Amino acid sequence: MTHTTTRRLALDGTAQDLLFRQAHTVDRFTGEPVTDETVRAVHDLVRNGPTAFNQQPLRLWLLRSPESRERLARHLTRGNREKTLRAPLTALLAVDTDFHLRLPEQFPQFPGASDLFTGERGKRERSARFNGALQAAYFIIGIRAAGLAAGPMSGFDEDGVDREFFPDGALSALLLVNIGRPAPDGARARGPRLGYDEIRTTL
Amino acid sequence: MTHTTTRRLALDGTAQDLLFRQAHTVDRFTGEPVTDETVRAVHDLVRNGPTAFNQQPLRLWLLRSPESRERLARHLTRGNREKTLRAPLTALLAVDTDFHLRLPEQFPQFPGASDLFTGERGKRERSARFNGALQAAYFIIGIRAAGLAAGPMSGFDEDGVDREFFPDGALSALLLVNIGRPAPDGARARGPRLGYDEIRTTL
Repeated sequence: MTHTTTRRLALDGTAQDLLFRQAHTVDRFTGEPVTDETVRAVHDLVRNGPTAFNQQPLRLWLLRSPESRERLARHLTRGNREKTLRAPLTALLAVDTDFHLRLPEQFPQFPGASDLFTGERGKRERSARFNGALQAAYFIIGIRAAGLAAGPMSGFDEDGVDREFFPDGALSALLLVNIGRPAPDGARARGPRLGYDEIRTTL
Repeated sequence: MTHTTTRRLALDGTAQDLLFRQAHTVDRFTGEPVTDETVRAVHDLVRNGPTAFNQQPLRLWLLRSPESRERLARHLTRGNREKTLRAPLTALLAVDTDFHLRLPEQFPQFPGASDLFTGERGKRERSARFNGALQAAYFIIGIRAAGLAAGPMSGFDEDGVDREFFPDGALSALLLVNIGRPAPDGARARGPRLGYDEIRTTL
């Protein structure tokens, strides 16, 4: 079945393995550093992914210094603390809830787009979090495209991280991602996935 | 710059083009049908993408019949109506806000995971929408991996679609995606993307 579906896609099997089939969430990494040039190359690829009104709300905070990692660690669940302090790089992914201010430039074909989001911060935040999540997924795929492994984490105190890193209020934390090369046995086993007939309805 | 970053990634240039660099949101498609076998192959690839606690909240409703498409069209913004009625296939992506009931089976290594989400539907819905958005992005990438084009749309009345298709209340609409092969001039021009130095902060 899987072999058949591999061949049914236009994307070659090696790329399917790299991005999805052989890729795993990683908890422990080697000490090899992740350079800024590599993260830049990941961004150059995945920034092309689509968002509503081309809003691109995602912002990337690279926590490289021990001090920045310690500031973050206070707001993590216990299970995420040690592995984050030891990862070569931790990316704090946040969204800019004032994304609408740049829509006239980013989505010029619809000059009224910005007005749809003026006033009500709740509506902006909902849209920014949804579209930021799309971009977070593109970013995870991009890390794998660079031959690296990602360790995404939702287990942190979002309000605490916002107060710690974004006190001015426009940015809002979305996801943490540890990045590096997997240590031996650093990758998690694949959890059971739902089958197509369990998740699909045809009308 | 782009040429250099293309070569800096492990993913080959052809795959980079297929999934990101040459891929565009499409509004008009050829009449060629999108088979269920193709959607199944897309799912078989992208179901491997990570979600928190392996929760996999995304559900896929394939709107194939003219009747189902008409039911949807009532809840679309005017600009999305015609192109949706003409697309070879429209996928209604929704999340199951009762995902926590299956966590004991999907994330057996942490038996308490389900309890984290019991009781408070707001917290479940927030988590389901975030993780469903990750999966929606994997799905868009998967459509492109199949050599097809995606036309994702947020412009619809979410409450109206929920009442129309999910009256029992556990499912919640997330995103619509038209799917097919691009008609000549059916793809949108690439909107301007934010540069790395505009979105990245290093601490």
